[in-house]
Amino acid sequence: MPEHVEIIEVGPRDGLQRESEFIPTAQKIAMINALSDAGIPRIQVTSFVHAKYVPQMADAEAVCGGIRQQPGVIYSGLVLNLKGLERAADTGLKAVDMSVSASDSHSRKNANVSLEDALQNFKGMVARARELGMMVRAGIQCAFGYYEPDVTHDLVVDIAKRHLALNIDELALADSTGMASPAQIKALLAEIIPLAGKVPVILHLHDTRGMGLANVLAALDGGCRYFDTAFGGLGGCNFIEQATGNIATEDTVNMLHEIGYQTGIDVSKVAEVSQSIQQQISQPLTGKMYKLLAN
Amino acid sequence: MPEHVEIIEVGPRDGLQRESEFIPTAQKIAMINALSDAGIPRIQVTSFVHAKYVPQMADAEAVCGGIRQQPGVIYSGLVLNLKGLERAADTGLKAVDMSVSASDSHSRKNANVSLEDALQNFKGMVARARELGMMVRAGIQCAFGYYEPDVTHDLVVDIAKRHLALNIDELALADSTGMASPAQIKALLAEIIPLAGKVPVILHLHDTRGMGLANVLAALDGGCRYFDTAFGGLGGCNFIEQATGNIATEDTVNMLHEIGYQTGIDVSKVAEVSQSIQQQISQPLTGKMYKLLAN
Repeated sequence: MPEHVEIIEVGPRDGLQRESEFIPTAQKIAMINALSDAGIPRIQVTSFVHAKYVPQMADAEAVCGGIRQQPGVIYSGLVLNLKGLERAADTGLKAVDMSVSASDSHSRKNANVSLEDALQNFKGMVARARELGMMVRAGIQCAFGYYEPDVTHDLVVDIAKRHLALNIDELALADSTGMASPAQIKALLAEIIPLAGKVPVILHLHDTRGMGLANVLAALDGGCRYFDTAFGGLGGCNFIEQATGNIATEDTVNMLHEIGYQTGIDVSKVAEVSQSIQQQISQPLTGKMYKLLAN
Repeated sequence: MPEHVEIIEVGPRDGLQRESEFIPTAQKIAMINALSDAGIPRIQVTSFVHAKYVPQMADAEAVCGGIRQQPGVIYSGLVLNLKGLERAADTGLKAVDMSVSASDSHSRKNANVSLEDALQNFKGMVARARELGMMVRAGIQCAFGYYEPDVTHDLVVDIAKRHLALNIDELALADSTGMASPAQIKALLAEIIPLAGKVPVILHLHDTRGMGLANVLAALDGGCRYFDTAFGGLGGCNFIEQATGNIATEDTVNMLHEIGYQTGIDVSKVAEVSQSIQQQISQPLTGKMYKLLAN
């Protein structure tokens, strides 16, 4: 029996949020439904952020209300603060994704808050999500570095410990800047997976420097079995104009199947979603498999 | 002292051969000189094939005669037959790259010869190259599969044994179709590297399915220390229209450096070559690092 690897599709949120052209709500819903039909077991469907900051996510409630929730599939929403958390709970979503940045400078620039204050706020958010009965994914952004050299291995381990002390359901390490290398991933996982114990450790990787799937391979070797991916390789880092997207769902799943893991996902069906979205968005999709499968 | 990995730049040959627009000879020469200035220790500079089949390589002699050969750098030419071999020797090149395809159907389609006949011809070519005092790299095309299922692990091992029996200098395994997976690479290297003994085993990989650098990582794990790459990720498979190029020199070298190997190559200088060629060619370069370094 091949070992299972869990894929979390983040395209509808991390992929679309940079698109300046508003994707109609009905289309987002159709896309999410198609992704769950392709066998993807978990989908991050939207982000509960003020529409002023991310206009693409202004329809968060409508998206959550419109999708055909399949039994067994986990639908989650990204929340940045207590307000967003309450909005997510009101939609009936059972899972929320929240995070702090390991980089104090990134945290101040991006969220206007110091790392220490962000960690304090985070504690309150986890407690409230618990009261609301929601599944909590606790993330660390920039876990593999930021443009200013304020992220260290030990700092990330320390934040992971603080997250884990809060009775979270999952821990996510995000390579927000696309700076991770296989060596760094192995070193961090070797310390964090034992700390996490039964709490799953998720990796969120970008293919900014072409080593996205090499990082997946290193992570598998290091014991990780949970990966964020985006169909077609949609997405990208907001801070590097030419940076490329998240690791592509199709490319990742194809490699996993070839090296002997199972995911339950139909690569061709995911590729159809990528093909259908390609003409409507401004960013070129950087995934490879969806192009091959288009033939 | 970090371990050395040897990069063989194949962009001037494998990268340019698909370009329908003729790149002026002076520019090819400047490109090769710039690549050696960037610290690349080995460059496949051209192919001695009839100009009717690959017009881009019609200036093979002029390119070889024009480059500024740096001491310590190995310049090689691809040859397909005895005629090409003599042409290569006449230019004064010290190294030739020749190969057979592991796929009988590919061999018949591409070279109009059965695998068995190709192996017989190959024997004569190696003998003649030896007489000419040239360094011989013996390759196996489609070593990881072809579109028809006629390539097996055992067949490739058998061809490798026959190559090795010919007193060759190097053995190259080419993933001509971009079908290799990390698992397949490990399995093949585990058998072939011990057989090769002191003969270096080179991998030639394409990034057709996004797992190019994952394949490099698996190959390093399997003991391989020699890789063909192309600046900017130039190149591609002639048989898949949307297939992408060779693994990019910059992306590969960057990963190697990050995980603790040394190559002697300056990534930024290679990226400059990619940037300078980008506007002159029709294919979009698929490498990632050269774009990041352009900022």
